[in-house]
Amino acid sequence: LTLAYDGTAFAGWQHQASARTVQATLEEALLPYDGHRVVVTASGRTDAGAHAAGQVVSFSLQSTIAVDRLQRGLNATLPSDVRVVQAEEVAESFNARFDARGKTYRYWIWAGGVAPPFVQRYVWHLPTTLDVEAMGTGAAMLVGTHDFAAFQASGSDAQTTRREVRDSNVACIEAANAAFGGLCVLPRAVTTGALVRYEITGNGFLRHMVRNIVGTLVDIGRGHRTPESMRDILLSRSRSQAGPTAPPAGLVLWSVHY
Amino acid sequence: LTLAYDGTAFAGWQHQASARTVQATLEEALLPYDGHRVVVTASGRTDAGAHAAGQVVSFSLQSTIAVDRLQRGLNATLPSDVRVVQAEEVAESFNARFDARGKTYRYWIWAGGVAPPFVQRYVWHLPTTLDVEAMGTGAAMLVGTHDFAAFQASGSDAQTTRREVRDSNVACIEAANAAFGGLCVLPRAVTTGALVRYEITGNGFLRHMVRNIVGTLVDIGRGHRTPESMRDILLSRSRSQAGPTAPPAGLVLWSVHY
Repeated sequence: LTLAYDGTAFAGWQHQASARTVQATLEEALLPYDGHRVVVTASGRTDAGAHAAGQVVSFSLQSTIAVDRLQRGLNATLPSDVRVVQAEEVAESFNARFDARGKTYRYWIWAGGVAPPFVQRYVWHLPTTLDVEAMGTGAAMLVGTHDFAAFQASGSDAQTTRREVRDSNVACIEAANAAFGGLCVLPRAVTTGALVRYEITGNGFLRHMVRNIVGTLVDIGRGHRTPESMRDILLSRSRSQAGPTAPPAGLVLWSVHY
Repeated sequence: LTLAYDGTAFAGWQHQASARTVQATLEEALLPYDGHRVVVTASGRTDAGAHAAGQVVSFSLQSTIAVDRLQRGLNATLPSDVRVVQAEEVAESFNARFDARGKTYRYWIWAGGVAPPFVQRYVWHLPTTLDVEAMGTGAAMLVGTHDFAAFQASGSDAQTTRREVRDSNVACIEAANAAFGGLCVLPRAVTTGALVRYEITGNGFLRHMVRNIVGTLVDIGRGHRTPESMRDILLSRSRSQAGPTAPPAGLVLWSVHY
């Protein structure tokens, strides 16, 4: 299944004893099909409050229901903050986590002005303008295979902190042009501030890696660090050298690549 | 003030004894400025669950605070589902309701496919495709000065049901192109369905008029009525001849004209 979810009211993807999680919600919705709990495997966890537009999960069902009927059935019972946007039958050997070759994340920032109420769950609203060009220069320095230990949440225990980043870029989308015909945004005459999008594609991500990169890029955009400092931070392999962890609301797991 | 609000968690604009309303929320936020309750006048009410991107309100303050400071102060105390997107000082004679020359509403429909969780609060999601061309033909028949009694909520007591509609059009925005750089939407590969926008501008609107028009247009889009039936419905002046009332979530008071 490809899932989209609004993470605002979830304590993240992964099952927890006493919190609402996307995994538990999906497994509960699958209960009627096999009559017992089906354990699902996602491409990876997502943080509490972070969103997904293209999370991929795999599982085995005994039921012989057709995938399009399964998709409709799940969308009828799942709460409206989780949707099955695609369903397909795959080889039994397919594993959403281990077969993933890479992922793309997006992170949205509303810089300055007034963020429309319709997007507040999906952006990090900053009161200041940002130097988007400097942020782009800093972001580009992450492309390649590096040790990303400096951007890993402290206390993590990944076996290796080397990752390959294939793309890392910053785009400024003039908020007043942020089209979508106006859904989720405001009339041009009352739109203030800029919408900044960070996009990163890599073969794998450490815990909080994207949010720690964004916190550092925002430091650059505010002029508190130079774009070139990104290289020194990487080389330091020290979490304390990088910027703060950006809030989860701006983060979207955009797509998983197989 | 020009206000934008997400109406999902409000019982509409107008003050009610024991429900959360936008008016009461704003009046409470204004309390510290004059030390007593300031009564605000909006361009008009909005329904429970309906949104505003450009609601306009007027009021008098004794306080001599500068409008930009007032705007920042209000945005700091208002809940995040209401934002002051613009603030300006006006002549004491200005009245947001009586000086309004017209209004523009938008109504969003997600037709078919799976509506992304990020837009569910702002669309009417229909399981079927719609004949957008037929809807446009029907919508255009409303332009002009007509008696809109057939589209007025039953039990209303407007003095006159004649209104001038200056523009009434339907647009289909290919959902996969619905850009906004992806904020609020899904990757192209997993986007299904079509995003349909109805826009209407007029000198004034009867209670539920836009939602009753949309319900009728959807009947046309589904092939249950002809576009030409719109004229007969107008002439009937009978609520029972028009379609059902569309749900409030898709409705946005887009702008008020002075």
